[in-house]
Amino acid sequence: MTELEKMNDQMLQEHYSALVHRYEEFQAQKLKLNMSRGIPSLDQLNLASGLLDCLTQTDYKAADGTDCRNYGGVDGIPEAKQLFSQVLEASPNEIIIGGNSSLSLMYDLIARAMLLGLPDSETPWVKLPQVKFLCPSPGYDRHFAICEHLGIEMIPINYQHDGPDMTQVEQLVAADSSIKGIWCVPKHSNPTGITYSDAVVKRLAAMPVKAPDFRIFWDNAYTVHHLTDTPPRLLNILDECKQAGNPDRVLVFGSTSKVSFAGSGIAVLASSETNISWFKKHLSIQTIGPDKLNQLRHVRFFNDLAGIEAHMRKHAAIIKPKFDLAIAIMETELGGQNLASWSKPQGGYFISVNTLPGCAKKIVAKTAAAGVVLTPAGATFPYGKDPKDNNIRLAPTFPPLAELKQAMELFTLCIQLISVEQELEKRAL
Amino acid sequence: MTELEKMNDQMLQEHYSALVHRYEEFQAQKLKLNMSRGIPSLDQLNLASGLLDCLTQTDYKAADGTDCRNYGGVDGIPEAKQLFSQVLEASPNEIIIGGNSSLSLMYDLIARAMLLGLPDSETPWVKLPQVKFLCPSPGYDRHFAICEHLGIEMIPINYQHDGPDMTQVEQLVAADSSIKGIWCVPKHSNPTGITYSDAVVKRLAAMPVKAPDFRIFWDNAYTVHHLTDTPPRLLNILDECKQAGNPDRVLVFGSTSKVSFAGSGIAVLASSETNISWFKKHLSIQTIGPDKLNQLRHVRFFNDLAGIEAHMRKHAAIIKPKFDLAIAIMETELGGQNLASWSKPQGGYFISVNTLPGCAKKIVAKTAAAGVVLTPAGATFPYGKDPKDNNIRLAPTFPPLAELKQAMELFTLCIQLISVEQELEKRAL
Repeated sequence: MTELEKMNDQMLQEHYSALVHRYEEFQAQKLKLNMSRGIPSLDQLNLASGLLDCLTQTDYKAADGTDCRNYGGVDGIPEAKQLFSQVLEASPNEIIIGGNSSLSLMYDLIARAMLLGLPDSETPWVKLPQVKFLCPSPGYDRHFAICEHLGIEMIPINYQHDGPDMTQVEQLVAADSSIKGIWCVPKHSNPTGITYSDAVVKRLAAMPVKAPDFRIFWDNAYTVHHLTDTPPRLLNILDECKQAGNPDRVLVFGSTSKVSFAGSGIAVLASSETNISWFKKHLSIQTIGPDKLNQLRHVRFFNDLAGIEAHMRKHAAIIKPKFDLAIAIMETELGGQNLASWSKPQGGYFISVNTLPGCAKKIVAKTAAAGVVLTPAGATFPYGKDPKDNNIRLAPTFPPLAELKQAMELFTLCIQLISVEQELEKRAL
Repeated sequence: MTELEKMNDQMLQEHYSALVHRYEEFQAQKLKLNMSRGIPSLDQLNLASGLLDCLTQTDYKAADGTDCRNYGGVDGIPEAKQLFSQVLEASPNEIIIGGNSSLSLMYDLIARAMLLGLPDSETPWVKLPQVKFLCPSPGYDRHFAICEHLGIEMIPINYQHDGPDMTQVEQLVAADSSIKGIWCVPKHSNPTGITYSDAVVKRLAAMPVKAPDFRIFWDNAYTVHHLTDTPPRLLNILDECKQAGNPDRVLVFGSTSKVSFAGSGIAVLASSETNISWFKKHLSIQTIGPDKLNQLRHVRFFNDLAGIEAHMRKHAAIIKPKFDLAIAIMETELGGQNLASWSKPQGGYFISVNTLPGCAKKIVAKTAAAGVVLTPAGATFPYGKDPKDNNIRLAPTFPPLAELKQAMELFTLCIQLISVEQELEKRAL
C-alpha cells in the first residue's frame, strides 16, 4: 500500500496542491538539463587528455614493425590485441580490434548474418520466414533498435535479480529454430545494474538450442566500469561455452568508449577462433582495416590492464558521488512512500527506477515540461513498449553535481505528482 | 605484327636463350619485392607526420563547440564537412564524414540497399530474383569483391579512352530493371588512369534507366592525386545529375587514405540531401558516430583545399619519378616490339599494361617466381576473369626507386619471355 492510499481525500488534495506549487517553482527556474543518455562528463574525458598527444611524429610503429599509418591489419595490431585480450579475458587469437564503435561491430555482424549467414547457418537469415531475438528487458535501446531496423522480431524476457529468467529462455530456444540470438549486457547491466550470476552464465552456455547458429550477443560494455572496490565477478562465458561443447555460441563485445574517449575509443570483438576467422574473412571485403594509430595511442596511454583499472578508479571517483547523490535524493524524497523503487548499481552508467504501473510516460513528460530531459519511457523495452509503463532509466554521469541535484529533485517531485494524480483519478476526485 | 613474328626460327630461339639466361640471373638475386597494391611509400607517409601531434590536450573542440572526444555527430563536425565539401565539390549539407574507410561506406551502402532498399526502391534488393551491377573493366578489384561477396551479378563494360562504353551502358540500363548500379573511378581511374570526359559524365547523369533506384557509385578516390600541374578536369556529376532531373542518382565517395595516412584517413560520402538524410537515419542505427578527433586533426593539419593541394604536390614530387622510371624502363625494354602497351597516367596510383592476349597470368606468375609480386592477373576484372588475359596492373608508389628499377626490369623481361614462349608454341618449336 502506498502512503498516498493511506491519506484521506482532503489530505491527498492538500498534498497535491503543495506538489503542484513546488512544480510551478521548478518551471519558473526554466531549467535546461539533459540526462537522457549515458555520456561521460567533461571531467571524465579530461582523465584521458593524454591520449591526444601521446604519439609523436616518430612513434607510429607497432611491436611487429607494422607502420600504423599505412594500410593493413584488418584485425588489429598485436599489442592492442594483447591489451584487450586481458580486458575481455580471451586469447589474442580470439580477438578482433574494430573501429571506434562496438555498436557497429554488433550491427555489422547481424547484417552479415542476415545477408550471408553465420559459419554454422543453414541459410542466410534473410531467407528465413522469421528471425527472432530474445531481449531481456529492461535493456539497451540501441540493441533493440538494430533488431527493429532489420526486421528481427523481439521477444521480451524478464530480468531476475541475477540475469534473464533462464527458465523462460531455455524453453524458448529449445523449441524455436527461428530464435537466433539473445542480447545480454551481463555486467552492471544497462539499465538495471545487475551482474549475471555464475548459474545464469553456465545455463546460457550449456542450454540446448534448436537453431544451430544461435548466438549470445554478450555486450560486456561495463566490464571494468565499477563504482566500488569490491565489484561483482562475472564468469568467463567464452570458457563456459567451450566447456559446455558450444565454443562458437558467444560473441563478446567491448569498447573503451566509456574508458578513454566516447567518440574516439577502440571497439573489440572476442569469440571462438572459428567465429573470428569467419568474421575476419568477411571484414576484409568491407574494409582494408581499422585505424591502427588509435590502437597504438590506447596502448601507449594505458599500457596494460592494470593501467586501465587504475584509470577506471579515477572515473569512479568522479561519478560515484553522482550516483550517491541521485540515490540519496530518491531516498529523501520518496523513501517509505512505496511510489517507486530504484537500483543501487555497483557499476555501469545507469540507475533503473520502477514507478507505479502506468506512470512512467507521464513522469518523463512532466519532467521534460519543466526542462529536464530523461530517457524516453519505454525505450528500455523492445519496440519502445514497456508493458507496465513503469520503468525509467536515469543517466547521472554527465551533469555536474549541482545540476544533477536540481534534476533529481524535479524528477522525484514528478514521480509524486503523477502518482497523486493517478490516486486522485482512482478516487474520481 | 610483333618483332618476334618477324624473327626466323633460329633468331627466335637465340633470343629466347638470351632471355632465359637473363631471367636466371634475376632468380639468383633472390629478390623479394611487392608491387601488388596501391600503397603510399614511407616518404609519402612522412609528409603527414604532423597529423600525429597536431592536436594538443586542450584542442578538442569543433567550431560549433562540440567536444570531439565525446559521443555524437553521426555525420561529421562542421569544419570537416566544409573542408571535404570543397574536395568533392558538394555543399556541406550534401556530405557525410565517415570513419577511415571509403570502402566501408560503399559496402555498407550496398548492404543496406540489399537488406532494406534505397529511398526510391520498390523492395529491398535481397528480395529480388537478381541484382546486377555494371563494371567498367579493367577496374578496382575491391569494388568487384563487394559485388561477388553479396551475390550481385557483375556485367563487364569496356573502357574507352574517355570512360566506359556509354552506348553499351545506356542500352543495358534502359532495358533491365535488375541493373541497380555502376562502379566508376572517374578520375585517374584504377587502373587505366583515364579521366571521364564531359560527354561521358553528362550521359551517365542523363541516361534513362529502368530501375528507379539505380545508382552511380562514383569512387572519386583520386580526385586530388595528380602527377602533373595540368591535370584533366572532371565534370561535377552531382550538378549534372541535378540538371538532368536525376538528383538522387549518384553517390560520390572520397577519402584521404592516399592524402594523409592510408590507415587513419577520413572517408566522405557526397550525394543529394535526400540520399544523405536517408543514409544518416540508417547510419544512426549502426553507430553513434565516427571518430571526430581524427576529423579535427585533418582540419588542423590541412586547413583548406589549398592546403590539401599543396600537400598533394609534395606527394607528386615523390611518386612522379617512380611512374617516370617505370614507364622509361618499359619504353627501353619493350618499345617498338608490339608486345605490350601501357598507360601514361596523369594521376592516381597505377599503370595499366596490356600484353599479348593469353599472356598476363603467365607473366605475373613468372615475375613472382623470381621474387616480385604483382597484382594477380585478372584481378582488375569481375570474378577475376580477364577475358583476353592480357591486363596487368602495376602499383609503382611503394617501392624505393632502386627496387622499382629491379622489379620493372624483371617484369619487362618476363613480358618478353612469355611472349617468345607463346610465339614458339605457335610455331610448335
